[in-house]
Amino acid sequence: MEKRFVYADNAATTNVSETAFNAMLPFLKEQYGNPSSIYSLGMDAAKAVLNARRQVAEVLGAARPSEIFFTSGGSEADNMAVIGGAELGAKSGNRHIITSNIEHHAVLHSCEYLEGKGFEVTYLPADENGLISAEQVSNAIREDTALVTIMAVNNEIGSIQPISEIGSICRERGVLFHTDAVQAVGHMEIDLQKSCIDMLSLSGHKFHSPKGVGALYVRSWIDLPSLIHGGAQERGKRAGTENVAGIVAMGAAITEAAADISARSERLAKMRDRLTDGILASIPHSRLNGGIKCRAAGNVNVSFRGIEGESLLLALDIAGIAASSGSACTSGSIDPSHVLTAIGLPEELAKGSLRLTLGDNNTDDDIDYILKVLPDTVKKLRRMSPMWQRICREEGIDDYTI
Amino acid sequence: MEKRFVYADNAATTNVSETAFNAMLPFLKEQYGNPSSIYSLGMDAAKAVLNARRQVAEVLGAARPSEIFFTSGGSEADNMAVIGGAELGAKSGNRHIITSNIEHHAVLHSCEYLEGKGFEVTYLPADENGLISAEQVSNAIREDTALVTIMAVNNEIGSIQPISEIGSICRERGVLFHTDAVQAVGHMEIDLQKSCIDMLSLSGHKFHSPKGVGALYVRSWIDLPSLIHGGAQERGKRAGTENVAGIVAMGAAITEAAADISARSERLAKMRDRLTDGILASIPHSRLNGGIKCRAAGNVNVSFRGIEGESLLLALDIAGIAASSGSACTSGSIDPSHVLTAIGLPEELAKGSLRLTLGDNNTDDDIDYILKVLPDTVKKLRRMSPMWQRICREEGIDDYTI
Ligand SMILES: Cc1ncc(COP(=O)(O)O)c(C=O)c1O
Ligand SMILES: Cc1ncc(COP(=O)(O)O)c(C=O)c1O
Repeated sequence: MEKRFVYADNAATTNVSETAFNAMLPFLKEQYGNPSSIYSLGMDAAKAVLNARRQVAEVLGAARPSEIFFTSGGSEADNMAVIGGAELGAKSGNRHIITSNIEHHAVLHSCEYLEGKGFEVTYLPADENGLISAEQVSNAIREDTALVTIMAVNNEIGSIQPISEIGSICRERGVLFHTDAVQAVGHMEIDLQKSCIDMLSLSGHKFHSPKGVGALYVRSWIDLPSLIHGGAQERGKRAGTENVAGIVAMGAAITEAAADISARSERLAKMRDRLTDGILASIPHSRLNGGIKCRAAGNVNVSFRGIEGESLLLALDIAGIAASSGSACTSGSIDPSHVLTAIGLPEELAKGSLRLTLGDNNTDDDIDYILKVLPDTVKKLRRMSPMWQRICREEGIDDYTI
Repeated sequence: MEKRFVYADNAATTNVSETAFNAMLPFLKEQYGNPSSIYSLGMDAAKAVLNARRQVAEVLGAARPSEIFFTSGGSEADNMAVIGGAELGAKSGNRHIITSNIEHHAVLHSCEYLEGKGFEVTYLPADENGLISAEQVSNAIREDTALVTIMAVNNEIGSIQPISEIGSICRERGVLFHTDAVQAVGHMEIDLQKSCIDMLSLSGHKFHSPKGVGALYVRSWIDLPSLIHGGAQERGKRAGTENVAGIVAMGAAITEAAADISARSERLAKMRDRLTDGILASIPHSRLNGGIKCRAAGNVNVSFRGIEGESLLLALDIAGIAASSGSACTSGSIDPSHVLTAIGLPEELAKGSLRLTLGDNNTDDDIDYILKVLPDTVKKLRRMSPMWQRICREEGIDDYTI
C-alpha cells in the first residue's frame, strides 16, 4: 500500500468546503462593505450577514434569526453563555452553576473564572463511558442554581449527552440551560424547536467553514449580558465589525451539512466501527476509551499500554496520518487529558491515547491505510519503550514486539 | 463628468489588498491545519501564525512577538485591555480609570460595564478640536488610578492625541496606559520601543485585511487577565482556535502598509486638504468638525446646516459615493454622534455631519467627483428641507437654493 495523506483529526478542525469558500469569496474581494454602513455596499454586506443568520437559525430550528449571535468561534460563544448566564442569575441572587468534569476548557475555565468572582460550581462526574445523566443534573439543581451547562458531544471521546432530557429538567425547574454543541452542529440533527435548550454554542471550523467564526444561540426571552462591549452589532449583544466573509461561509456550510446529515453520519459510523474493531483486534493491550453507544459518528479514541501518545502522533505524521492525543487546544501541554482522567483512565493509559476523528473527506481506503500503518507503528514504539518493557516484566506479559 | 463609484469611508472599513488576499488564500484551501496540532499540517499553520505575529511586532516596534495577542478585532482588543487592565488594578485595590469622552464605544461601553462593577471612571473632555492634553491626564491621575485609556486617533474627526506624552506621564506615575490605535495602525508611524505605551489595540480591516481579526499589544511584564477563557492559545491569554487565514492576511497587510507609510500619508493629506477646502469654499454654511492640525491624513468631517446626515448619505449613495455620518458602528441609531456633541456641536450640526475618509485606493479624480456632486446634493436637500427654510427665516439668511 502506497503512502498517502490521511487527515483523521476532524474534531480538531476541518477544511473549508468548496461551497463555503465560494460563498465567502466575494466578501474578501469587491463586497467589502461594513454591514453597519447605510450605503449599498454596506447594505449588501448586512444582507449577506442576515442571510447567514437565517441559514443558521433554520438548520437549528430556532424560532427566529435574531436568536443567533455571531461570535469569533466556539470559545467566545461558550464564554458569552456561561459568564453571561451566570451574571444574569446573579441579578436574582443565584450564584450556583452546574457543569460536568468533561467539558471543553472554554466552559471549564469560564467556570473557574466565575469561582474567582464568588460563584459556586458543581462539576458533575461523567461515568466510565463519558456520560452525564439527566438524573445527576436533577439532583444537583438547587434553589440558587443560575445555569446548567453540559456539552452536547464530547470532543475527545465523542460521548453524546442526553441534552433533550437535561433541557426538559432545567425548564421544569426554571434553570437556564446552555449546551456547548461545537462537536454536534453540522454532524447530528439538532432541533431547538423540540428541545428545551436555552443557549447553544457552535463553531464554524468544525463543519467546513474557516476558523475564527462561530455563533451562540440565545432563546429570545433571555436578556444575556454582553462579553464584548461596544458598537451596536448583533443587536447590541456582541460588539465589533462582523467577520462578514466567515459568517457567510458558515451559513453556507451549515446548510450544506444539514442537507444529508443522516446519510453522512451513517457512513462515518460504519467507518468508525470498522476502524475501532480493526485496531482492537490487531493491537494487543489496546482499549477503546468511552462507550460504544451514544458516540459521535466519527470518533475513535483508543489507548495503547506502554507508549507515549506524542511519540505515536509524530510517527503517524511521518506515515502521513494526522491524528491527535487529547484535545488539540491543550496539546503542547504535558498533563494527561482531563477527560480521559475523568472517565477513570490511569495516567499511563491517558497519556498513551490516540484520537482519530473521521470526516466527510475520509474514505474506506483511509481506514485501510490506518489499519495497515497503526499496528506496526505501535509495535515499533513499544519495542523501543522502557515503559512497555517494564509493564511486560512486572505483569508477566509475553513481549510480542521482539 | 461621468458617474463613478467613490469609496470614501475608509475609516469604517477597507477592501482586502491583493497582498493580504494572496497570503491568506492557502489557509482557506489546503493549509487547513489547527495550529495547536503537532503534525505537519498543524505545525505549518502554527508557523504562519508565528510569522504574522513577528510581522505585527516588527512594524509596531514591539520588543518581542510574544507581546502580540491576536483577537477577533478592535472591539475585543479594547475590551481585553480595558477590562483586563481594570481587573489587574483591582488586585492592588486600584479601581479608578481615566479615559476621554470621545473614545470609541468599545472603550466607552467597557468603562460603563466597569462602573457597574464598582469602578470609578473619569471621562476627560476633549477640546473643540477633539484633543486631550497630557496635562489633563496628569491632573486626573489619582493614588488609586488603575488604567489610562486614550485613543491614538479619533475615528470620527481624526484628531491625533499626544499618546507619547500621555504615555510618559503614565509611566512616571506608575499607571498602566492603553491606547486604542485602531485608526492609527497602518496609517501612521508607531514605535512602541520609543514610547511608553503599555497596551495598544489594532484592527486588521482598517488597513486592508479582512474583517474579524485584530490584535492587542501587551508589554511583556504585564500579566493581563483573559477576556475569553479556555484553551492555551495565545499563551493562555486568549482562548479559541486561531483565525489563521485572517491573522496571516493581517501580518501581510501591516507589512505592506508600513513599507511606504509616510509617502501614502502625505498623498492622502494633500487630497484631504483639497477636499476640505473645496467643500468649505463651495458650500455655504458648512464647517469643518475637528481641527486642522493633528488630524488623520485621510479624514474630512464637515457639517452642513439645515440637512439630515442620513438623507445626505442616501443621496450620495445614489450618486455612487460611499460616505458616513457619525461612526459606522452606531449608524442606524438616531442619536447624534457622541464625539461631535463632545467637541461642542449643537445637535442640529451634529446630525447634519458628513465624514469622508480617504484611503489608498482614492485618486484625484475621486476628489474632483465629490467636489462636483456634493455642493449640488446639499443644495437640493436644503431646498426640500423645512429645517433649512426655518433657519433662513429665523436667522435672516438669504436662501441660495431657490
Ligand atoms: C477607534 C476605533 N476603535 C475600535 C473600533 C472597533 O474595531 P472592530 O470593528 O474591529 O471591532 C473601531 C472601528 O470600528 C474604531 O474606529
Ligand atoms: C467541545 C468544544 N467546545 C469548544 C471548542 C472551542 O471552539 P473554538 O476553537 O472555535 O473556539 C471546541 C474546539 O476546539 C470544542 O471541541
